Amino acid sequence: MSTLGLIGCGLLGGSVALALKSSNCFERVLGKDVNQTNLDSALTRGVIDGVLVDTTAADALCVAVPTAAIADVLNEAFHSGVGQHIPTFDVGSVKGSILRSLTHPLPNFVPCHPIAGSHESGPEVADVELFRNSTCIMTPASETSERHIQYVEELWHAMGATVVKMSSEQHDRILALTSHLPHLLSVAIVKQVFQTDGVSDYLGNGFRDFSRIAAGDAKVWRDIFTENSDELRIHFSEFVSIVESLLHQATEQPVQLEAQLSVVSNKRKSFDDL
Amino acid sequence: MSTLGLIGCGLLGGSVALALKSSNCFERVLGKDVNQTNLDSALTRGVIDGVLVDTTAADALCVAVPTAAIADVLNEAFHSGVGQHIPTFDVGSVKGSILRSLTHPLPNFVPCHPIAGSHESGPEVADVELFRNSTCIMTPASETSERHIQYVEELWHAMGATVVKMSSEQHDRILALTSHLPHLLSVAIVKQVFQTDGVSDYLGNGFRDFSRIAAGDAKVWRDIFTENSDELRIHFSEFVSIVESLLHQATEQPVQLEAQLSVVSNKRKSFDDL
Repeated sequence: MSTLGLIGCGLLGGSVALALKSSNCFERVLGKDVNQTNLDSALTRGVIDGVLVDTTAADALCVAVPTAAIADVLNEAFHSGVGQHIPTFDVGSVKGSILRSLTHPLPNFVPCHPIAGSHESGPEVADVELFRNSTCIMTPASETSERHIQYVEELWHAMGATVVKMSSEQHDRILALTSHLPHLLSVAIVKQVFQTDGVSDYLGNGFRDFSRIAAGDAKVWRDIFTENSDELRIHFSEFVSIVESLLHQATEQPVQLEAQLSVVSNKRKSFDDL
Repeated sequence: MSTLGLIGCGLLGGSVALALKSSNCFERVLGKDVNQTNLDSALTRGVIDGVLVDTTAADALCVAVPTAAIADVLNEAFHSGVGQHIPTFDVGSVKGSILRSLTHPLPNFVPCHPIAGSHESGPEVADVELFRNSTCIMTPASETSERHIQYVEELWHAMGATVVKMSSEQHDRILALTSHLPHLLSVAIVKQVFQTDGVSDYLGNGFRDFSRIAAGDAKVWRDIFTENSDELRIHFSEFVSIVESLLHQATEQPVQLEAQLSVVSNKRKSFDDL
């Protein structure tokens, strides 16, 4: 019976499990999770079909734990002598730090980051359609085997995703701007609002949208911020310059400010059409 | 026939018109707008029932133009000798600058800011229910007549809003943090993303939520940024310190960072329950 081994049964891992069973890539998914509640819930909801106790029982492995723990899982599998040849992929939001933390080259490990998710977490919100029409970034290392890349690429296609390949460095630079910095800004404004007396009664729908991502999982985002802090700092520094330039225009060049706001408003509207 | 005069027939003005007719506060709304398309659309959609050519035809006036134009409208009404006694209220997002720009005390003018809106604009999206269960901040000046305050307060109640009174200074300080700063940050990140090559293909749903407000009307937000820039600068300076502290924790104190992220995540989730 073809089996996917799933390490980490949260939103992303659970969605991979549902999508790969639904597309008949695997007949069953065996999962494990350090969080008992997650594991129980994944079993109850049928996200996984049983508990993974022996990695060699799996034909492929998906590692869907917070990014700081991914290399540990891979290193442990390598040193225990199992899981060195099973096609393995992760779904972590930072890639360079994982590759740097591997104690040995792992040709069977294909680093992946699906650009999909939610501010909610846990197997309860796992969604068989989460990756439909999404982009999955794959960042193979020099040692990654071509055969395994092709195998994992086909899994993502089966889940409805388009695969784009790039270096882990390029991935981390791009995502620091498109995902990690917005999350950091959202966290900071929620912190600022709730530490300022007497303002939280005056939050509207704009703030609701803007701050939604700040509800994300604390452990997942701690790892992302920690492991991609260099790129985050670079982008944040540029971000501060842009805000200061807009504030300067607000008092000195209102005509130019309106032109800028008009361009930004149209860019943002065009993004809704994508 | 009891008549509301509406100056500015966009989203907010149009929604006031619909809500005050629906609640039978006025039998008809006569409107004007410097934008011909807005005026035509407001007429076609039945948001207004006719064009306002003589302010004295109105029993009350709602001024719903971008904030920088509000004082001009009020000063013009004063100097033309009409509209000095008609109960008048605005819906502007900044209050201090309007009061400072009045050439004469206007006891009949009740400054209002309903905390409601959308990233969309224009009479096409005017909504009879926009103010239902919302908060309207009222910032009466020392000269504002108590009778007019009560009258306008009843109008907001009829529209389903709760009225909170405070000084214009307090309003501008609070809204700079809860609304104007998030908007500025959202604009800046959209600008940064779209001016950086090769990243806009990697935007997920988190970015979509976070940046939605940046699609707002350019003229409206130019005025807000310009007229509340002092308060914005103060809050932005504190915001930068918070981000820097989070970035410091990311590399030096990951345990504290996770604790902070956990508090923020819970605060944000609790806001969804409101």
